[in-house]
Amino acid sequence: MAKELTSRAENYSQWYNDLVIKADLAENSAVRGSMVIKPYGYAIWEKMQSALDQMFKDTGHENAYFPLFIPKSFFAKEAAHVEGFAKECAVVTHYRLKNDGKGGVMVDESAKLEEELIVRPTSETIIWDTYKKWIQSYRDLPLLINQWANVVRWEMRTRLFLRTAEFLWQEGHTAHATKDEAVKEAELILDLYAEFAEKWMGVPVLKGVKSPGERFAGAVETYCIEALMQDGKALQAGTSHFLGQNFAKAFDVKFVTKDNQQEYVWATSWGVSTRLVGALIMSHSDDNGLVLPPKLAPIQVVIVPIYKKPEQLDEITLEVDKIVKDLKSRGISVKFDNRDTHKPGFKFAEWELKGVPVRLAIGPRDLENGTVEVARRDTLEKETLAIQDIAHKIENLLENIQNNIYQKALSFRDDNTFTVDSWDEFKDRIEKGGFVWAHWDGTPETEEKIKDETKATIRLIPIDGKLKEGKCIYTEKPSQQRVVFAKAY
Amino acid sequence: MAKELTSRAENYSQWYNDLVIKADLAENSAVRGSMVIKPYGYAIWEKMQSALDQMFKDTGHENAYFPLFIPKSFFAKEAAHVEGFAKECAVVTHYRLKNDGKGGVMVDESAKLEEELIVRPTSETIIWDTYKKWIQSYRDLPLLINQWANVVRWEMRTRLFLRTAEFLWQEGHTAHATKDEAVKEAELILDLYAEFAEKWMGVPVLKGVKSPGERFAGAVETYCIEALMQDGKALQAGTSHFLGQNFAKAFDVKFVTKDNQQEYVWATSWGVSTRLVGALIMSHSDDNGLVLPPKLAPIQVVIVPIYKKPEQLDEITLEVDKIVKDLKSRGISVKFDNRDTHKPGFKFAEWELKGVPVRLAIGPRDLENGTVEVARRDTLEKETLAIQDIAHKIENLLENIQNNIYQKALSFRDDNTFTVDSWDEFKDRIEKGGFVWAHWDGTPETEEKIKDETKATIRLIPIDGKLKEGKCIYTEKPSQQRVVFAKAY
Repeated sequence: MAKELTSRAENYSQWYNDLVIKADLAENSAVRGSMVIKPYGYAIWEKMQSALDQMFKDTGHENAYFPLFIPKSFFAKEAAHVEGFAKECAVVTHYRLKNDGKGGVMVDESAKLEEELIVRPTSETIIWDTYKKWIQSYRDLPLLINQWANVVRWEMRTRLFLRTAEFLWQEGHTAHATKDEAVKEAELILDLYAEFAEKWMGVPVLKGVKSPGERFAGAVETYCIEALMQDGKALQAGTSHFLGQNFAKAFDVKFVTKDNQQEYVWATSWGVSTRLVGALIMSHSDDNGLVLPPKLAPIQVVIVPIYKKPEQLDEITLEVDKIVKDLKSRGISVKFDNRDTHKPGFKFAEWELKGVPVRLAIGPRDLENGTVEVARRDTLEKETLAIQDIAHKIENLLENIQNNIYQKALSFRDDNTFTVDSWDEFKDRIEKGGFVWAHWDGTPETEEKIKDETKATIRLIPIDGKLKEGKCIYTEKPSQQRVVFAKAY
Repeated sequence: MAKELTSRAENYSQWYNDLVIKADLAENSAVRGSMVIKPYGYAIWEKMQSALDQMFKDTGHENAYFPLFIPKSFFAKEAAHVEGFAKECAVVTHYRLKNDGKGGVMVDESAKLEEELIVRPTSETIIWDTYKKWIQSYRDLPLLINQWANVVRWEMRTRLFLRTAEFLWQEGHTAHATKDEAVKEAELILDLYAEFAEKWMGVPVLKGVKSPGERFAGAVETYCIEALMQDGKALQAGTSHFLGQNFAKAFDVKFVTKDNQQEYVWATSWGVSTRLVGALIMSHSDDNGLVLPPKLAPIQVVIVPIYKKPEQLDEITLEVDKIVKDLKSRGISVKFDNRDTHKPGFKFAEWELKGVPVRLAIGPRDLENGTVEVARRDTLEKETLAIQDIAHKIENLLENIQNNIYQKALSFRDDNTFTVDSWDEFKDRIEKGGFVWAHWDGTPETEEKIKDETKATIRLIPIDGKLKEGKCIYTEKPSQQRVVFAKAY
């Protein structure tokens, strides 16, 4: 079963598509560019949501819900914003269908909207129109709001999880009395995203800011986290934007300061999406299937009975029931795969494909010896352990796997991170993949030329403050610090 | 503050609107018929979601996600379904905007979709198109899937929570090998909804089926729960549909039975929505504001310090910290309202308006006496209790309040449930409000005439099996059992 996957070496892109389909994560729908997220894929997203939601709440954010539709005129209010999103908008123009007289239905032209509605590609405009009503005084600030929602961007080339016309995400929208506070909020969220990526997803990320050309449409500064996939391409895993007063000005949102002055409100917005599921898959999985970090695995432990006669299954079940109970009391999710329709080998391959972190196998000989076979998905290693205290051992093993997955991804990134100082070396490295630290003269023209010639983009400009001067790899003009280049998803 | 609410007696409808706005639950948005759900209102919905989601999972259902957009042609495949929904559909016709040359944007006519997309009013069609790919054999059944999503129905008259163009809901869509199993599923979910309404919302409900005229478009049978609001109007709080093989036939979804026969799949669908928040408000709240059942209250306990000097607040805080810790360890959510910008009286009124079930007040004299003032929102009663073991007492009190709210609503419903046998009596009772049990001859014509003359609809036909014959109140023709009439939201 697992063998049907294309290998990564053979065709990484095909391997990814195969895996998403065969592991029952998602599939394409009848609607161009929109996916169906299947239960197993959705369960991973739910675990991500739950962890992120708690992090947002722990830092004082509240959830709310704003309309799916945005009046067209709102869109035009922030010039850069509309420029960035107008070309990929789904537009609602009518509100009724009627019989077409041929057994089908057609749009009822008499039900045309006076003003068209845009299906939200992101919600800054409708939210800042609302904030105008909510914010009068400094006492109303800060406003720390998040929403879990679907959004639509009419992408031309789509890929399951990574780029879809409709996707699920969270979008935070905060309002502040000072610039400093808003910048701190954008940075706080960046740190929180990085922590989530590393501690939960087991994906190491670089933090930095985008070059002006890669900024969010309407932002003053876009902070981002970037991860490196196994094929050496970068993937933007989350962004947090300092919006300055751009949206406050566009929607005329002012507040009265403590000194009784009228001032425009400062803003941030930030989001991560179902794209993270794609990043998770691409970071850890192998030619046998998914490798899921225990903290996000829908099923953490699977138990497969090995038996020939029904009486043997009964005896095994008695022992398994005890293990299941003990695991559950520790908050560990476990599935006893006692299907009699499939053989153990089939089950092993299936759960490997689905990335369950730990597999236990128990047969009659194990019962005699008081043992159980424990297989870990990340390394594919097996060992036979005494069944006594097994739940406790598995609890430790899951932690160990979580750490190992992260360390493995970190080593991979380290091995694929390069510092280059010449244009030839740069072209060569970029072609082979990985993060390439190089000097850039800071101009959009050079950024564009490098992109045209190599397909590499500036993934981020570091913000750790450690400046070190050098010469641009392309123009040899002076540069203040190295930036990170890569080809990207 | 709370005094600004219109009273229920004066104008129930205005009271409801005032309350939704003033308790910060929701507000109208710039998009016709779409609401903004504010953080306090959304927190109630989140608690509902969490309880329902657990109930669905405990009964073997899994979550998934299907596209927001539905191709127009899918819609026409089930005749009754399209008839029911075509008149209230938002239709996407274009996928791009462009500059209008006047600083605004306009629809780009060159980006017209070949086939228009409908924003889902419900997802049977897109889901059954997907199930066709997922179901081949009896081994693939049952398929027990739920989705949490937004849907759009272009309602002409909208009201916050109760009827909005866009709303949030869950929609379950299950597929079964036999009719019997599908009917059982529809009934299981009906019971689950009723349990949720009664145990969590504190809202007693009647269970039954809809008359053919009130059935879901495409259903063979629509099961429903109906609640009675304080103004004597009924509110449909949840529906569960047995769809027969209608959608399987429309989308050609067959499976191979154990006997190797090809058969169409049997289906159910079921949903509850943010409308439940409206039902919750209308069932329990009073002229002082919201009354929330503890199990769904975002904040279960609020503590207000009574002090003149800052040192007093310090001493009170020391005591409060202990109470807060003890309450939290019991899983009780608590807020210490130590704002120095507002007086206790203001805070009392604010938390009453927001329906926090229990309020504690602690002043210097309480510290001396080892006491605390405990006020319960449901009865507005206050008592002074020894502070010792106070968290335990509050835990019991919250249970007591949860029960009391339900009992009060149950008494109200009992007092407003009537059995009538004559047309004059019927018209009189319907006018005054309440559930009216009366005989009906079973014809759509009579149902329609009764509705025209009194605005009353058949809320449900009981399914408890206790038939008792009589004569139709309108036509005096024979009737097998009484049905429940009411004016409804």
